Amino acid sequence: MRRVAIIGVGCTKVGEFWSKSLRELAVEACWKAMDEAGISRVEALYVGSSLSQLVQGQGNLGALIADSLNLQGVEVSSVEASDASGALALHQAYRAIASGEISLALVVGVDKPSDASSSETSKALMASVEQEYVAYTGVNLRGLAALLHRLYREKYGVSHEDLAAMAVNSHLHASNNPYAQYRNKITVEQVLKSPVVADPIRLLEVSSPGDGASAVLLCPLEEAGKYSGRPVEVAGVASAPGDFILTEAEDLVSFKATRLAAEKAFKRAGITARDIDLVEVHDSADVVGLICLEDLGLARRGEAAKLASAGELNVKGSLPTNTMGGLKARGNPAGATSLYQIVELCWQLRGEAGLNQVSRARIGVAQSLGGLYSLAAITVLRRVEA
Amino acid sequence: MRRVAIIGVGCTKVGEFWSKSLRELAVEACWKAMDEAGISRVEALYVGSSLSQLVQGQGNLGALIADSLNLQGVEVSSVEASDASGALALHQAYRAIASGEISLALVVGVDKPSDASSSETSKALMASVEQEYVAYTGVNLRGLAALLHRLYREKYGVSHEDLAAMAVNSHLHASNNPYAQYRNKITVEQVLKSPVVADPIRLLEVSSPGDGASAVLLCPLEEAGKYSGRPVEVAGVASAPGDFILTEAEDLVSFKATRLAAEKAFKRAGITARDIDLVEVHDSADVVGLICLEDLGLARRGEAAKLASAGELNVKGSLPTNTMGGLKARGNPAGATSLYQIVELCWQLRGEAGLNQVSRARIGVAQSLGGLYSLAAITVLRRVEA
Repeated sequence: MRRVAIIGVGCTKVGEFWSKSLRELAVEACWKAMDEAGISRVEALYVGSSLSQLVQGQGNLGALIADSLNLQGVEVSSVEASDASGALALHQAYRAIASGEISLALVVGVDKPSDASSSETSKALMASVEQEYVAYTGVNLRGLAALLHRLYREKYGVSHEDLAAMAVNSHLHASNNPYAQYRNKITVEQVLKSPVVADPIRLLEVSSPGDGASAVLLCPLEEAGKYSGRPVEVAGVASAPGDFILTEAEDLVSFKATRLAAEKAFKRAGITARDIDLVEVHDSADVVGLICLEDLGLARRGEAAKLASAGELNVKGSLPTNTMGGLKARGNPAGATSLYQIVELCWQLRGEAGLNQVSRARIGVAQSLGGLYSLAAITVLRRVEA
Repeated sequence: MRRVAIIGVGCTKVGEFWSKSLRELAVEACWKAMDEAGISRVEALYVGSSLSQLVQGQGNLGALIADSLNLQGVEVSSVEASDASGALALHQAYRAIASGEISLALVVGVDKPSDASSSETSKALMASVEQEYVAYTGVNLRGLAALLHRLYREKYGVSHEDLAAMAVNSHLHASNNPYAQYRNKITVEQVLKSPVVADPIRLLEVSSPGDGASAVLLCPLEEAGKYSGRPVEVAGVASAPGDFILTEAEDLVSFKATRLAAEKAFKRAGITARDIDLVEVHDSADVVGLICLEDLGLARRGEAAKLASAGELNVKGSLPTNTMGGLKARGNPAGATSLYQIVELCWQLRGEAGLNQVSRARIGVAQSLGGLYSLAAITVLRRVEA
């Protein structure tokens, strides 16, 4: 197996882009990644998108975006796995490079929920959940997260204030990220006074859909020197489904998918949880992000919230988490989200994270969930010494 | 790069299955493929589906079908590329095996259009076409195929009778395929007397949506002996986008995507068009299938229809084509279609094609189109001598 490197990254700001189309967002991110590496042509294009069929009525995205980039003749593929779409597209590209058949691959994640009404978007987001028994009941993602919130607090005796510290941390980091959707700093008091979206969860505890695109360029590690960008190694990737129906899980406040995927990814990368210098987790709600940290083995059960409230998840803390704002504050552009995590880790591992730079960052891990929370994608990145 | 083999295949009949769900169809095909190889567990699952988000409202299919198969913890991915979805899922699995990271991968294509009304299905099928300038006009896939039909006949002076021979050939082959949707033999006269669906195209010239699932099991060729199924080698795979908007093509009666993908796939497999013993082409309409044969280099421009009317596309002819009925008569279950082609080629290359067996079949090629006709997937299969 060939070792694989990322030699260019790019993304758009996350927001609401009334004057840009889905394909324009994708092209903007791709051009940035290609410019970093100093190239204009690739051998393969991998697209990750979750909402485009239901929001734009547009499928066949591989061919669409290849056409927009004038990439006729390249290999194309488009992957859908809810918020984990971008990461899984990256994993396909990784294996194509590792196989030896492809030597330069572009991966782009893109979604643009603002093209639909909020009820249409809500329905599109629910497509990742089981339709016949779960979506059918009328429950939505917020409602299910509210159940987890209650269970987590009850099981571990955690205060609402401690949970809210996760969101406060993300907003603090986003305040220094020019690509973030929400750059305002917030306090625990503001979180707890914000409107209820699904009792007891408050507005400032959950991520919201945004438009955005993120892109990553891959080549064999041994060929990285041919390009102008500073390389980061993709040390290991894995995905895993867990329980598809949340209520069938043995333990509701732990996501089996993350545990199974992390075990594989860490083994492939030759690391343990102790080697991780910084992490991006799927904080679609504060409680979800905290459970992810525990599932990754980075915090003991029921203790991640304490780390948050003690400031340990800050870029200067012992476990720098969601260092560019996470889903909560950088924003959550659905299928693009998990590739934003990769872009942000690359900034950190190249020492280009500005005011949010984590010192001596060598190993970064991105963890993303698809559905509720039926699928996990884990990507381990490693700094390449200059 | 490791060489890759198919060691098990399976499919459902194509039809309208009011009493089976999308996931039940997928599971049925997967179990057949796994039974052939004598296994019950894989390392990775790749799903190809085109319509599930728009017809069933169900995304996140990788995790859904893994759950249905009790495959928690495996790698999962779900690919969407219109009718080429299944083939592209296979290509991702192929590279995962070739890379050395995965040693047993299950690929399943599935779609179930009968869950929606025909207008909803028509809209879902149009998702593969450009939305803002093409779908927007109200044109549908049949209408655009009718334009090609007129152009092809005018450019090459081909009779309607000669075109219709393609559909007659497919129905003849399907009559011996127990999994086919339409097993009735038809005549050229019947084709030309059938109702007009888009002038001048007649009902019996076009494929129609059907429900179905197809599955294929992959492992390294060198490990194929460990399993009970008879192996077939995946000799080379490639995909390519061409012109995304049909009217922007330099030549409307040739699909650049097929030419570009075939060039790559044949090179990777070390073959030329002359080495091909049988072929599955994307005959969504008779004229489309004939153009595909020409784009593959298997017939001169404007002459594929003559081969059809001369009987050369028959399993006993010089260029056995769509030997189990093709999209036209085996049926076209959208995202599963291109994986049915692979299943059928495996039957042929294993000598298990019954009354339709092509003698001395050594190299089989499957060609599929996604969108209209913006994307092509090519898969070259090679017989493994016992």
